[in-house]
Amino acid sequence: MSETSVKSMEAIVSLCKRRGFIYPASEIYGGINGFWDYGPLGAQLKKNLRDAWWQDMIMNPCWGRSGPDGDRVRCVPVETRIIQHPRVWEASGHVGGFNDPMQTCKQCKKLLRADHVPDLLAESEWVASLAGVAGRAAQEQVLIEGTEVLKWTGGKGKKLAANLAIYRDAEASVRIVAKLRETTTPIALAEVIRIIGNTSSAENPWPCPICGGELTEPRPFNLMFPTVIGATGDWESDRAYLRPETAQGIFVQFKNVVDTTRVKVPFGIGNTGTSFRNEVTPRNFTFRSREFEQAELEFFCHPEESQEWYRFWRDFRMEWWQSIGLRGDNLILREHEKDELSHYSTGTSDVEYRFPFTAPGFGELEGIAHRGCFDLTQHQQFSGTKLDYFDTDRGETLPNGSKKGERYIPHVIEPAAGLDRGALALLCEAYTRDESRPSPEIMRFHPRMAPIKAAVFPLVNKDGMPEVAEKLHAELFRRFGHAGFIETDAKQSIGKRYARMDEAGCPYCFTIDGQTLTDQTVTVRDRDTGGQERIGLDKVKTYLEERLGV
Amino acid sequence: MSETSVKSMEAIVSLCKRRGFIYPASEIYGGINGFWDYGPLGAQLKKNLRDAWWQDMIMNPCWGRSGPDGDRVRCVPVETRIIQHPRVWEASGHVGGFNDPMQTCKQCKKLLRADHVPDLLAESEWVASLAGVAGRAAQEQVLIEGTEVLKWTGGKGKKLAANLAIYRDAEASVRIVAKLRETTTPIALAEVIRIIGNTSSAENPWPCPICGGELTEPRPFNLMFPTVIGATGDWESDRAYLRPETAQGIFVQFKNVVDTTRVKVPFGIGNTGTSFRNEVTPRNFTFRSREFEQAELEFFCHPEESQEWYRFWRDFRMEWWQSIGLRGDNLILREHEKDELSHYSTGTSDVEYRFPFTAPGFGELEGIAHRGCFDLTQHQQFSGTKLDYFDTDRGETLPNGSKKGERYIPHVIEPAAGLDRGALALLCEAYTRDESRPSPEIMRFHPRMAPIKAAVFPLVNKDGMPEVAEKLHAELFRRFGHAGFIETDAKQSIGKRYARMDEAGCPYCFTIDGQTLTDQTVTVRDRDTGGQERIGLDKVKTYLEERLGV
Repeated sequence: MSETSVKSMEAIVSLCKRRGFIYPASEIYGGINGFWDYGPLGAQLKKNLRDAWWQDMIMNPCWGRSGPDGDRVRCVPVETRIIQHPRVWEASGHVGGFNDPMQTCKQCKKLLRADHVPDLLAESEWVASLAGVAGRAAQEQVLIEGTEVLKWTGGKGKKLAANLAIYRDAEASVRIVAKLRETTTPIALAEVIRIIGNTSSAENPWPCPICGGELTEPRPFNLMFPTVIGATGDWESDRAYLRPETAQGIFVQFKNVVDTTRVKVPFGIGNTGTSFRNEVTPRNFTFRSREFEQAELEFFCHPEESQEWYRFWRDFRMEWWQSIGLRGDNLILREHEKDELSHYSTGTSDVEYRFPFTAPGFGELEGIAHRGCFDLTQHQQFSGTKLDYFDTDRGETLPNGSKKGERYIPHVIEPAAGLDRGALALLCEAYTRDESRPSPEIMRFHPRMAPIKAAVFPLVNKDGMPEVAEKLHAELFRRFGHAGFIETDAKQSIGKRYARMDEAGCPYCFTIDGQTLTDQTVTVRDRDTGGQERIGLDKVKTYLEERLGV
Repeated sequence: MSETSVKSMEAIVSLCKRRGFIYPASEIYGGINGFWDYGPLGAQLKKNLRDAWWQDMIMNPCWGRSGPDGDRVRCVPVETRIIQHPRVWEASGHVGGFNDPMQTCKQCKKLLRADHVPDLLAESEWVASLAGVAGRAAQEQVLIEGTEVLKWTGGKGKKLAANLAIYRDAEASVRIVAKLRETTTPIALAEVIRIIGNTSSAENPWPCPICGGELTEPRPFNLMFPTVIGATGDWESDRAYLRPETAQGIFVQFKNVVDTTRVKVPFGIGNTGTSFRNEVTPRNFTFRSREFEQAELEFFCHPEESQEWYRFWRDFRMEWWQSIGLRGDNLILREHEKDELSHYSTGTSDVEYRFPFTAPGFGELEGIAHRGCFDLTQHQQFSGTKLDYFDTDRGETLPNGSKKGERYIPHVIEPAAGLDRGALALLCEAYTRDESRPSPEIMRFHPRMAPIKAAVFPLVNKDGMPEVAEKLHAELFRRFGHAGFIETDAKQSIGKRYARMDEAGCPYCFTIDGQTLTDQTVTVRDRDTGGQERIGLDKVKTYLEERLGV
């Protein structure tokens, strides 16, 4: 096998654009940072992923398996809104806690996360240059003579950090120079930075790591996109938010679902849809986008059984991602360390994939969290609506044989998957180069995920072959058209047509040739091996049924 | 048949809540006006509707039919973002033209559409009372003596319009009273209203129809929800919008789709997803919501063939809605009058449904519009990117037999459906009362749309019946679970269980009884007739396959 094992993200992004998987959003307008659209193949790939989740998590949860309680796992769906009552996000903690304190440089206008500023200074070009005066790397322990600092500010400093207070502010400059002249003992680097930057406040102790300028006070920046409901246009009184997760829609409707369906704890509620996070630095293709799709399940169970259910879901979710084609060393299940856990969680695991841009590390595809009774308790408190559950199968047995019942707030296990990240992992995993082929790029999608399920080709566009091909295509189209595209194409050499299908990730190509007309067989070509075999024309449908699983 | 033909919206809304089709969004927080969530049955109903659209419009367009050109109709999907570059909405006309001028009363804070104010005054209680002084209805022609007006302002007026300038503003009051005293000829009602309201500006000529107070100047209110991208928090410079329609995402990616797939004009691009309109007065259940889901197709064709394609899509779309259960007089196809058409459209039709709240009128489910080359031309102009198409199948024939080609901007036929409105029409159409049944409410969904596809009941929960039921349930679950719920239930009387399934719209119930154990047959009960027949246990799957079409 002559495959290249290191996958280039650049090659993947390029193929995604060229073959219509993923386009930059609003590209003809120069694009919009953090937003991506899906082309025809990408839209169907994502639909296949979303439908597989819906089927394996809601309609036939865990492939019909029993849970730790011995009964079949039972889940129902909801579809909740992107815009919810703003109080929902106070209860969930997103209004108060979903914040990054941010600072802007008043001179170069660069926006920085406040907690990143010390690290950015340590990596800063001008700080490194300043530390170099003392012949050392930029560490706090470095000590520099006042006269050395003055020499630097008179030379390199001017070019590298032109917005330092010593250059910017004439009045401060006089004081700074005097101070540096008068100091007789060497000064710590951190102190030097503050002196020449004229930054002394405890809350805002540093100058800009880029240009030396003055940073604004740290201001909380909420990651939720704000909007305004109604016609008053009042940003404050009528403010609402675009949801940062689909999960809260489930908790808010928990009581309605319990009251209006016959679900009994343990059971799950699933929800898919678009969420938004106003990321400061969207990056890594679709991995960290500002608009993304989630598939979340909240599984409600008795507190005493919750650890078992946590392990059950954690293991099933890993198995599920493997089942749709993410196998081998690139996929791991990582249990969070104690100090990584949210204060309410007694266990969280991530299903992680080794993307080309995270390698040798991994990036999160899905988090499976034991959330305790945190969410329902919060919403109960903020809404004033009771969200406990009366379990008629628990409590002591009464004389008439029934149970006394038990009232409790269920604990929650939350498998929360990212569908765009899932699609990106499928794309990265599928991407393969086989240099032994004339057209080396192959997308090895799992057949269930492949957006093109099959292709039917007449070897040449004459001699009765197109007619046979058209008939077979129509038959396959009727049977499998709901699950993906069925292609047909009579142009170019057969090799070029196969290569096109390899790039699109079509798992099976059926070719009508001269022999078909005499013995009613066709060749079927396997995408992954390039190998061919002959099967009866009347066997093609069954052949696909067995392999596509749709 | 003892059905009630008039359907009560109140009964439908109530059933939707009680059986988990539709819940008010954020209900435990008091709800949020104009937003609705879907419960388990509603979420699956909507998924069935969305999937049917995807299959019949994109994967197997028009059920495999040929278009007016004689070729099979070909469509591809895209999935585009809710947040697009703001220039997209300038090109589409939504930034400039999607506005209603609004006024707020400075006293009672009521928000009014400026163009509605004259009508609201004509219907206003205080204006009617004032006109009554002259013994007439509130019409402009009514004339009133100044002294009569003063009598009214000293009496009823104080109660009905307490915020008129004559009460509110002491200084104005003196002038108003003097003017009314001095006038010797009767004054037109409209003029009286302005005098006592002290409103004289041409742009803002009326007092508040509710309380007589002062209205703000009319301000344009854009129906797009605004948001802000990035961490600057600058509402002006970083403003973006939530899309008011999915269609523009298609136009913006038209070039990418043409460049990266092998589609050739004529072809369609489909897109489904959430859109937002900041409706001033959301109403009629989910019909006019602020967040809603669309399924839009843009079909690109040669200008000369566009009228034929317009008629083709208009007729197919009507047929499609009929095929999923909206039949009879409640569904109409209405061709727009010339004066209803957008300036760029040469033809538009609406598929309309007679909802209980529109009856005897109709409400729009889908608009099929001939949009000419308006959208592509606009985006070409605003983006500076060429969006024409080079058609290699047109132009004069060259000596080598190929065509010279023709360059043009395709014309567009747009069938644009509302999925929430579609789901609401399905719910209204399905809702039936049959007073001859003990539990009279029945949801007669088309089997393809029904969220519960089938139910399996053991007649009693003993004698080996539960085991047979469980086995049949598992079999049906595996085969049909992707398309909807398969229920099973052993509690309560069989009549109650049937009634529950009638309310949920489950088309077929299979019951295992004593006879099953001896002759391997089950009863199948038809939801619509209530009639039962016996079929072989081994025939149930085929029975459903023939009827569900999945």
